[in-house]
Amino acid sequence: MPVLVMKFGGTSVANLDRIRRAAKRVGVEVAKGYDVIVIVSAMSGKTNELVGWVGETSPMYDAREYDAVVSSGENVTAGLMALTLQEMDIPARSWQGWQVPLKTNSAHGQARIEEIPPENIMTKFAEGMKVAVVAGFQGISPEGRITTLGRGGSDTTAVAFAAAFDAERCDIYTDVDGVYTTDPRICPKARKLEKIAFEEMLELASLGAKVLQTRSVELAMRYNVKLRVLSSFEEQSDTAGTLICAEEDIMESNVVNGIAASREEAKMTLVTIVDKPGVAASIFGPLSEAGVNVDMIIQNVSEEGVTDMTFSCPIDQVKRAEKALNDARTAGTIGFDELTVDTEVCKVSAVGIGMRSQSGVAAKMFKVLSDEGINIKVIATSEIKISVLIERKYMELAVQALHDAFELEKA
Amino acid sequence: MPVLVMKFGGTSVANLDRIRRAAKRVGVEVAKGYDVIVIVSAMSGKTNELVGWVGETSPMYDAREYDAVVSSGENVTAGLMALTLQEMDIPARSWQGWQVPLKTNSAHGQARIEEIPPENIMTKFAEGMKVAVVAGFQGISPEGRITTLGRGGSDTTAVAFAAAFDAERCDIYTDVDGVYTTDPRICPKARKLEKIAFEEMLELASLGAKVLQTRSVELAMRYNVKLRVLSSFEEQSDTAGTLICAEEDIMESNVVNGIAASREEAKMTLVTIVDKPGVAASIFGPLSEAGVNVDMIIQNVSEEGVTDMTFSCPIDQVKRAEKALNDARTAGTIGFDELTVDTEVCKVSAVGIGMRSQSGVAAKMFKVLSDEGINIKVIATSEIKISVLIERKYMELAVQALHDAFELEKA
Repeated sequence: MPVLVMKFGGTSVANLDRIRRAAKRVGVEVAKGYDVIVIVSAMSGKTNELVGWVGETSPMYDAREYDAVVSSGENVTAGLMALTLQEMDIPARSWQGWQVPLKTNSAHGQARIEEIPPENIMTKFAEGMKVAVVAGFQGISPEGRITTLGRGGSDTTAVAFAAAFDAERCDIYTDVDGVYTTDPRICPKARKLEKIAFEEMLELASLGAKVLQTRSVELAMRYNVKLRVLSSFEEQSDTAGTLICAEEDIMESNVVNGIAASREEAKMTLVTIVDKPGVAASIFGPLSEAGVNVDMIIQNVSEEGVTDMTFSCPIDQVKRAEKALNDARTAGTIGFDELTVDTEVCKVSAVGIGMRSQSGVAAKMFKVLSDEGINIKVIATSEIKISVLIERKYMELAVQALHDAFELEKA
Repeated sequence: MPVLVMKFGGTSVANLDRIRRAAKRVGVEVAKGYDVIVIVSAMSGKTNELVGWVGETSPMYDAREYDAVVSSGENVTAGLMALTLQEMDIPARSWQGWQVPLKTNSAHGQARIEEIPPENIMTKFAEGMKVAVVAGFQGISPEGRITTLGRGGSDTTAVAFAAAFDAERCDIYTDVDGVYTTDPRICPKARKLEKIAFEEMLELASLGAKVLQTRSVELAMRYNVKLRVLSSFEEQSDTAGTLICAEEDIMESNVVNGIAASREEAKMTLVTIVDKPGVAASIFGPLSEAGVNVDMIIQNVSEEGVTDMTFSCPIDQVKRAEKALNDARTAGTIGFDELTVDTEVCKVSAVGIGMRSQSGVAAKMFKVLSDEGINIKVIATSEIKISVLIERKYMELAVQALHDAFELEKA
């Protein structure tokens, strides 16, 4: 039987009614002849509650215990989904990460998937089970402890299963009906895309378009998994949502295909560091070890052998970053006069594969922001995106102005 | 190091503050030099919520999925307790049932513990860990599925750990300060017992004094585990609470030591069954297979080869019992005219080791109830207890009258 992976996010399984609705969609695919692997998130709000309890209990928590706690919400949904399917006379059972087993490394809180042996589940399919309901977001480390894959990790679970089981497609059911040119809550003119290239989606995902976890898109690209994002609240059809696919499968593309915005950013500056070879490594090494996801980096022009180093990271990692840097200073491995933190910033980015062959996109973007009186604090570019860090209060304005300027409302 | 087992019930870990308070008690025992195994329940209310969801999703649920769902609350508490202890600089980690592993049979929903290999946890103690926090109530079946031990199963988890680790004592922290002669909410004159014999506690526990799960007391008796019930909300001391111990350790005892009451009972009667050898087996076999805990049984005097059979069971197992009996009738293995169900009954019992050597206790009990105008529907007796099934509305009245008649307020 061909295998189909269907993933339901937190809002799609927020209560028993919604689980039932999701189960009906699964039933439609089973009726078509698929063996279905269903990946479920926790009911919406549950994981946040658990994360809150952990943070309140222990601000600098042991990530192994964090994982043991926050992974529990998915187990509840997986069991309830299996029971719901059974009530519909569809042979189903739930699997927790360690039961599959979904093997990860030991990077608790942000573990990477290493292997998903398909034997256990395939044996059950061969015995007549039609649906394997798998708790998303979680796995098991080589030490036998529970790991989690980072927020939004259930998307990654889904794509990894699609790759491991050579699934025909991986459908990600969520509360939006596809991928938009930008966040429709910020810009009402936002337009739904029928298709988007993996590379573009990767930039949009990592830039804060919260539709899919970045790593799920990376993984889909690497294993060429056909990935579809669609709403669990709309009519079921084979062409609903947005298909995320290889660049070759998209006939023509705009220069800019999307504007992404990320609100939860912080800018940190190390004032007066010695500018010598190895200084960047001595700063970003400890940050990496502390699990800080450094995003943009700028180093000022060096004057008299000293300089400043600025970087951005998610706002909830600021405490951890401060501790890592101050510890390194105490240990004598780095030196700086002052560590300034600006938590009132956001990141806005323009993304498009067309940028590769068309120049002037950056210039146009800077002019649009300048015309709106928005000061740019940090700039970063790649082949297919331009990102700027700006004051948070201008985020909506910047997104709307850029969406208009690049005419994204037009197909 | 000597090992101490401390179990905290749902109200003792109901929120982060209470978890902190419980952790402080653990800290006191660690400071005394114990290696401590902490068994935790789910935060109060959580398991009920999960059980409710399962029942709403699937009234005749797959018990394997029930277990996967309802076991999740304990995982949360275990992780949070470990984090809280770590914040107090006490080396601690959490263990889920399958990680220990706590091995059970495959009787999902009511699994029996088969083995707790102590090696994994002892290795960690040897490496300097001071507290192993274990999620109560759950284990792993030979098939690798999660099992649960039945409601209140964390008590059994605690006693089983105390036996497996040869613990000096097993302290059960709960929201009451010990075992009472009866439920103080029903009878304000109820008196706290300093000591009670295993056998008496066993009868009280199984009769609805919800202080301890029955099986935990059985297990403690079999392995001679010193079991103490005490409140997590009162001053810590070595003599607080009630000690449950061997009969020999109690100097003198009242004839009746406790009155137990169980509200959630149902009475079922099979009307007009053929009275022939094997008929009881053909009735109670299917009930047992369906997981119905039949308690009291009476068979009427046979007339012309037919009779009625009455039994009681927990009220939440009535549906299951009805299905099992009707299925058996359909299959032709039993025959009856009618199945009547009375869900408006309760059970009241008098318990005391002294009954063994003193007669007239039953007669006195029946007279007390009769004087209050309470009709007895079913009677069951053992060496040390007398139980009656009566109309539920008389439960409080019966308990108070019996408590007075047997002078239980006096030590």
